[in-house]
Amino acid sequence: MAAIKITGEKKLVLVSGRAHPQLAADIAAELGSELVPTDARTFANGEIYARYDESVRGCDAFVIQSHTSPINEWLMEQLIMVDALKRASAKRITVVSPFYPYARQDKKGRGREPISARLVADLYKAAGADRIMSVDLHAAQIQGFFDGPVDHLFAMPVLLKHFKARLDPSTLTVVSPDMGRVRVADIWSDKLGAPLAIIHKRRDPLVPNQVSVHEIVGDVSGRVCLLVDDLIDTGRTIAKAAQALKENGATSVVVAATHAVFSDPAVELLQSEHIDSVVVTDTLPLAPEKRWDRLEILPIAPLIAQAIHAVFDDGSVTSMFDGAA
Amino acid sequence: MAAIKITGEKKLVLVSGRAHPQLAADIAAELGSELVPTDARTFANGEIYARYDESVRGCDAFVIQSHTSPINEWLMEQLIMVDALKRASAKRITVVSPFYPYARQDKKGRGREPISARLVADLYKAAGADRIMSVDLHAAQIQGFFDGPVDHLFAMPVLLKHFKARLDPSTLTVVSPDMGRVRVADIWSDKLGAPLAIIHKRRDPLVPNQVSVHEIVGDVSGRVCLLVDDLIDTGRTIAKAAQALKENGATSVVVAATHAVFSDPAVELLQSEHIDSVVVTDTLPLAPEKRWDRLEILPIAPLIAQAIHAVFDDGSVTSMFDGAA
Amino acid sequence: MAAIKITGEKKLVLVSGRAHPQLAADIAAELGSELVPTDARTFANGEIYARYDESVRGCDAFVIQSHTSPINEWLMEQLIMVDALKRASAKRITVVSPFYPYARQDKKGRGREPISARLVADLYKAAGADRIMSVDLHAAQIQGFFDGPVDHLFAMPVLLKHFKARLDPSTLTVVSPDMGRVRVADIWSDKLGAPLAIIHKRRDPLVPNQVSVHEIVGDVSGRVCLLVDDLIDTGRTIAKAAQALKENGATSVVVAATHAVFSDPAVELLQSEHIDSVVVTDTLPLAPEKRWDRLEILPIAPLIAQAIHAVFDDGSVTSMFDGAA
Amino acid sequence: MAAIKITGEKKLVLVSGRAHPQLAADIAAELGSELVPTDARTFANGEIYARYDESVRGCDAFVIQSHTSPINEWLMEQLIMVDALKRASAKRITVVSPFYPYARQDKKGRGREPISARLVADLYKAAGADRIMSVDLHAAQIQGFFDGPVDHLFAMPVLLKHFKARLDPSTLTVVSPDMGRVRVADIWSDKLGAPLAIIHKRRDPLVPNQVSVHEIVGDVSGRVCLLVDDLIDTGRTIAKAAQALKENGATSVVVAATHAVFSDPAVELLQSEHIDSVVVTDTLPLAPEKRWDRLEILPIAPLIAQAIHAVFDDGSVTSMFDGAA
Amino acid sequence: MAAIKITGEKKLVLVSGRAHPQLAADIAAELGSELVPTDARTFANGEIYARYDESVRGCDAFVIQSHTSPINEWLMEQLIMVDALKRASAKRITVVSPFYPYARQDKKGRGREPISARLVADLYKAAGADRIMSVDLHAAQIQGFFDGPVDHLFAMPVLLKHFKARLDPSTLTVVSPDMGRVRVADIWSDKLGAPLAIIHKRRDPLVPNQVSVHEIVGDVSGRVCLLVDDLIDTGRTIAKAAQALKENGATSVVVAATHAVFSDPAVELLQSEHIDSVVVTDTLPLAPEKRWDRLEILPIAPLIAQAIHAVFDDGSVTSMFDGAA
Amino acid sequence: MAAIKITGEKKLVLVSGRAHPQLAADIAAELGSELVPTDARTFANGEIYARYDESVRGCDAFVIQSHTSPINEWLMEQLIMVDALKRASAKRITVVSPFYPYARQDKKGRGREPISARLVADLYKAAGADRIMSVDLHAAQIQGFFDGPVDHLFAMPVLLKHFKARLDPSTLTVVSPDMGRVRVADIWSDKLGAPLAIIHKRRDPLVPNQVSVHEIVGDVSGRVCLLVDDLIDTGRTIAKAAQALKENGATSVVVAATHAVFSDPAVELLQSEHIDSVVVTDTLPLAPEKRWDRLEILPIAPLIAQAIHAVFDDGSVTSMFDGAA
Repeated sequence: MAAIKITGEKKLVLVSGRAHPQLAADIAAELGSELVPTDARTFANGEIYARYDESVRGCDAFVIQSHTSPINEWLMEQLIMVDALKRASAKRITVVSPFYPYARQDKKGRGREPISARLVADLYKAAGADRIMSVDLHAAQIQGFFDGPVDHLFAMPVLLKHFKARLDPSTLTVVSPDMGRVRVADIWSDKLGAPLAIIHKRRDPLVPNQVSVHEIVGDVSGRVCLLVDDLIDTGRTIAKAAQALKENGATSVVVAATHAVFSDPAVELLQSEHIDSVVVTDTLPLAPEKRWDRLEILPIAPLIAQAIHAVFDDGSVTSMFDGAA
Repeated sequence: MAAIKITGEKKLVLVSGRAHPQLAADIAAELGSELVPTDARTFANGEIYARYDESVRGCDAFVIQSHTSPINEWLMEQLIMVDALKRASAKRITVVSPFYPYARQDKKGRGREPISARLVADLYKAAGADRIMSVDLHAAQIQGFFDGPVDHLFAMPVLLKHFKARLDPSTLTVVSPDMGRVRVADIWSDKLGAPLAIIHKRRDPLVPNQVSVHEIVGDVSGRVCLLVDDLIDTGRTIAKAAQALKENGATSVVVAATHAVFSDPAVELLQSEHIDSVVVTDTLPLAPEKRWDRLEILPIAPLIAQAIHAVFDDGSVTSMFDGAA
Repeated sequence: MAAIKITGEKKLVLVSGRAHPQLAADIAAELGSELVPTDARTFANGEIYARYDESVRGCDAFVIQSHTSPINEWLMEQLIMVDALKRASAKRITVVSPFYPYARQDKKGRGREPISARLVADLYKAAGADRIMSVDLHAAQIQGFFDGPVDHLFAMPVLLKHFKARLDPSTLTVVSPDMGRVRVADIWSDKLGAPLAIIHKRRDPLVPNQVSVHEIVGDVSGRVCLLVDDLIDTGRTIAKAAQALKENGATSVVVAATHAVFSDPAVELLQSEHIDSVVVTDTLPLAPEKRWDRLEILPIAPLIAQAIHAVFDDGSVTSMFDGAA
Repeated sequence: MAAIKITGEKKLVLVSGRAHPQLAADIAAELGSELVPTDARTFANGEIYARYDESVRGCDAFVIQSHTSPINEWLMEQLIMVDALKRASAKRITVVSPFYPYARQDKKGRGREPISARLVADLYKAAGADRIMSVDLHAAQIQGFFDGPVDHLFAMPVLLKHFKARLDPSTLTVVSPDMGRVRVADIWSDKLGAPLAIIHKRRDPLVPNQVSVHEIVGDVSGRVCLLVDDLIDTGRTIAKAAQALKENGATSVVVAATHAVFSDPAVELLQSEHIDSVVVTDTLPLAPEKRWDRLEILPIAPLIAQAIHAVFDDGSVTSMFDGAA
Repeated sequence: MAAIKITGEKKLVLVSGRAHPQLAADIAAELGSELVPTDARTFANGEIYARYDESVRGCDAFVIQSHTSPINEWLMEQLIMVDALKRASAKRITVVSPFYPYARQDKKGRGREPISARLVADLYKAAGADRIMSVDLHAAQIQGFFDGPVDHLFAMPVLLKHFKARLDPSTLTVVSPDMGRVRVADIWSDKLGAPLAIIHKRRDPLVPNQVSVHEIVGDVSGRVCLLVDDLIDTGRTIAKAAQALKENGATSVVVAATHAVFSDPAVELLQSEHIDSVVVTDTLPLAPEKRWDRLEILPIAPLIAQAIHAVFDDGSVTSMFDGAA
Repeated sequence: MAAIKITGEKKLVLVSGRAHPQLAADIAAELGSELVPTDARTFANGEIYARYDESVRGCDAFVIQSHTSPINEWLMEQLIMVDALKRASAKRITVVSPFYPYARQDKKGRGREPISARLVADLYKAAGADRIMSVDLHAAQIQGFFDGPVDHLFAMPVLLKHFKARLDPSTLTVVSPDMGRVRVADIWSDKLGAPLAIIHKRRDPLVPNQVSVHEIVGDVSGRVCLLVDDLIDTGRTIAKAAQALKENGATSVVVAATHAVFSDPAVELLQSEHIDSVVVTDTLPLAPEKRWDRLEILPIAPLIAQAIHAVFDDGSVTSMFDGAA
């Protein structure tokens, strides 16, 4: 037959935006690889430029970006990097966005609102992304916003491993900071073998116009309380929950979350006397001034690197979370 | 200029599948219109055929179908009807699916699962639908599964109007049958000015391997309990919740839901002595043998007809739910 | 260069819907492989669920389904299985539908009809199918309904091999049951070296309002007649054709068809005294009560397995049918 | 509300390629309108250019082109004209291609063939066409190749009207020139109340290697034979059929076809002594040297103009063919 | 017929992002309309939110945004606003981006670069934009990046009207600041009836390694020089050109440009002694500290308002620029 | 796991249209391969047919076509060949169009024009092309018209190598034939180390209605002038430029261009006494009657073959042009 034949080869390349270079470097190190040298710049009028210094033709490319503030800059940079990969003949492009941007605008709460989380999925698709990898999506339905595979990773094994070595189930209570996160807390409660409590912030319907109260459902008096959430943004909900727990007799309050958004005034609020420690992962970068002694930051790179390798090598990502912790 | 000009005209047509002809007829009657006569048939081998007996060229068409069992038959019939409209030059096609099919498969709970609710949105799009109208989506994120406008209607005004005339807030407690529906119950509690209770079905983490218990959070003793949910399928959750409420001293238990799926053994379970009455809407058809004296079925046609008219006439659907009840 | 390299590998996996498990098992056996264990279920309200128990990441997946009654259920199950494969990162997805659903609705015979065969192609595409494999499409133009490769297999080699060992060309006549299938019968006539006859069902234009007559074109008296068609649905056309042949002196009537749809009353009609034997393939399942002693069912699995292997291994499917029989 | 409102208006514009200006002018005249003045040119290197001299913004545009030889030039010109309309903000674009290009390449007869009729539909879509209008498609399935409405017109009313005034059913026989066109001839036979005959060109299977024979099925001796087909290309099939009819005693042979492709040597062959007259429509242009005294050309413009008006005015195209002739 | 009919109506609405509220207000005022009240906000973590306070259902919507620094924020805001319009059933969405973002990254100058101007067109499309309106695109080919109509406006009539009243052609020379903008300067030269000069910045190929020189082609001594460009970013090219002109005897130097990007250090450089005055339009906002006495800002709102009205009312945008100035 | 595994293999195949068989053969020879035998024909009515005689399943296919006159025929042939590859399961399809068709219609110069260069990119996409390879695009922005990778090759290394051995920089001047091609000439000037001159064809604005003059910018007297352009169509611009150069004292005039379109009357004009020699590549075929003794044709096949191999083998195309000449 009139054909030239060669053995097929698969090549994995990692490229990174400028939002969180340490995380990208850590992932590359975990994989025993290096990031593709990239010339990424912002021009005087704010336009971003990116170019790869090495051929990426035929590669299985992973575009790592962390969506911290200024979040739109980093999203646009990532889109531009995807476009450049597409036009440079990358074989497959996976967007690695540990903290999915605009995840909380996942539905129209009222008429004439956008569904920005879907828009982000559409923008990734338009730029040329074939796949998405993310950690602890705010709503699991976001997987359905993308017309293609989404590797949804869970930070729970990382966090659980940390706490199992440090907390005693017999004195521990897992606490959900509000009604909307009960399902997550329920899984924690199950995994740690500790009881569950819920903080319900609501109006008392029997007393008209009364301000909201932080009602605690479950037993917290004399117990170590582990407040769990997927993300901490301004910290207000967590801080008020911690205060309520302490006021109800909690011995200590430990906070666990995957995504440390830490918008103002989170850093101040989280250093409250009511919070004994905060444990997060480094899906988002934390500048030195956003760190304090009772904050512990667990590395997420090993988890992401393992998932990237499984994706590249056609292994199972699902099995990474079987029987976790 | 070399052009023929005429004044533009907009024409609304309603077409209906065979799943729930009464609902379609009611909607048409509310609009003072008629359904387009349609020849819809199922051939001997199970294939469905549909043809419109009148021109639908240039029309603003609404394709009403109710997704009761056999749900895949009715979905396929609706898709075929959309295809026929598209090829017959309808100007705009809105799928009216009061009970969105496969709404509960809205995410990958585990690896290698489908996201069938997104698939349904994709199938509607592929057939030629421009818009979707639905009532009380199981998860509001399903709006984001469709690449186009989704008119999300709420049955709450219909149900609330019914209960406001019949229940006394001073003796009433709104109850969520499980943790996942608390947000809906919270809105009811607010609208009715009645307190909230929650039934929490879970394992007791302090006692390993213990079976689940139906713990009641909130005060229900001596009160009229209104159990609210978006849908009732087999009725098991509702029946156990009602039993728990009665065992905890509830005076009476009233159940309210939008979608009466009523799969076996719902009809039997809902006639339990613990349930004093059940109120649903007719988004899904209920055969005579699925009705009993303590079941009340409220008509949803007025709501849908109003929304269709607003869509056709470029009015506001959002405002239909402003200050509802 | 900053890349990790490994040798590429191709993996073939077979998955199957629940319509015709025997056929899928036979195909797997022919390939010396197994079906991926799959959890497929129908919920109480009729919704279908499917999940693969093993990783399918990076695989060349073939989704086998047989479109027997209830045909819409099996089509929807197949679409859901394709969606699950797409989201589980299968590399390429081929829909294997030996009997293409809705093949007979391949054009608008009248205004405002759907073109459901095109719709089915669009639904496959929307769910994520890259390719289609089918056997003896009712109209070859259906290949053009799909925007991608369609492997169109022919059962003729299977059927011809059977008849060549059993029928004597010198006493045989190939018969087309109506004007629309003449081209197929013509190929049979050529392959078997036997003359052709045609049954023409029509009104006599010289006698107004006369009912249709079954006119036989060609010589059938004293001959073994082989009636050929792509499918047998209710069996009415075939039964009347057989009767006409016998009335015109045919020694015996043998019926051959690829797809045994056998809707009511086919099983009864085909056991008519005018039909000496019926030979079909098992592209569609036949329950024991749909089988009788003069019915012979030839296995189609070897043909499909060979084609799947050629597709997987980049061999030629076309050459499978070169110089057939 | 913050909106400026005006009454909507619909504007119809006709534009035409350069293949058959007379037909376009006739259609415009029938509609009492004019063609939009267009600057269409072919540059020295063969590239085509087209620009409209008047605004087409917001118009319902119909792009008339006739696909005669050089067929690829005229197809490309039409695509360029569609692109220019799209970019000039036409509201809706209907491609009017009375003779659909590449209609005969509507399936893969063998492996590795194109399906050019589908490709043409895809090219129209890619350029920006919303709809297609065509006359007597070679295969009705081509409607399904386009993802949108196709107005499929039939020239039969035009031709029938002509013949009803000229032929006597009592001496007439309708003849299909080969097996593939029997269905068309059957409708003619029905409409004219005349019997049907078929010419079967085939090998005699009882005599190996024998050349094909033109077998006549039905009675033609002493009768006026009306040979009907959708198109006449080189004329070879028709000429041989006419000869066979005359040899079998036909009194006269009249030929009717919609599309006069008339590739060489059609003009010569159709002037054969065996053919008494030929009647076609002017869907394709016929240069003076392709006309002779026994050729009659019926105008197709009234039919197309009526359909364009119905499409523009949201009337029914289907009803144009109800109870035809 | 079973249809409800009403007279069609067209509604124009204007919405605006937060980048340049004055321009949007001016456009609305020119049209005698108002902007739709919009709740647009940036959350603490940088995510943007937008919601319309009035129904936009069925409207012809124009989304005005000015792409000044931070350009990615404003682009993302515009995309979110388009998404909200799409989901709120706007009938048609036109993006009004007077200064097209990333216009200068319109090709791959080297391998592995993005084509960000095409990416922006794709993002607009993905969000739901049907059309684009822009002023003086850096390269006219950008029109071809969008799959749909692009209304390309020219600021030249606005600028020319200003200069015709102020400059005497007999002493004027139009100057292109570099080789790449000669075509624009050539049109100016023609419109003003003044001769052309060009500044060529290049290496002298006869003297190796020599730094670039600003060679002036054409006669500038003793003349008023009008330096024209589509945009001024950092001002370096213009400042050096002005210096060269003065050094070559120019009497005075006037600078004209459409888009006042004015990135640092433009404001400083443009106040150079070599530049007598600068005239721009307000396609981009200029803060008070970016204005000085020899800067004149011409309003672009009348031009854009006129074009929006023509688009809405199906008038001709092309004719706005016929015989300009 | 239930999977059959084999080692992946990549296969390159070359197919060619009929426009320039010598070029395709040369490319194949350079690669040490052969063209896939193809049955390509034009039917009597002008329709084109193409079929591959060997399996192309799973191949990396390159479709070589040269867009000479009749350009629309060859474009359509290439599209049909792409369609056939797509339907025959080719893995990846790259269109190799050394001279990109319709490259000069790359923008709307006036309203209601097409952007045919974008249309061509859309047609390639619609037919099934994944990638485009071309040489010296008329405008580099055309890369952005295609939604996928475009390998943009430069003939400059081929041409430079030729001239470096033949021309003496000390007596050489590079000349741009008009303002629009200055950038190309500038690169040549840099690569050859020779000064630049420009020919400016324009009206003299100080003398109304004066005809255009060919003004020469730069020193050409007594020098060897190398006129460079990307393509030569009718040759008028080049011929007038050569005359002007000679009239201004040029010693000799050498013309270099990549694409020899040579529409009438190019062959006559280029043999003018003012032109000493013409050097082109064979991206387009040149019939014997279009060749003369002072025309030199350099082979482009080695460059294209090298690029095809790099694309197939995931090498770098960019690096082919690093430090060129």
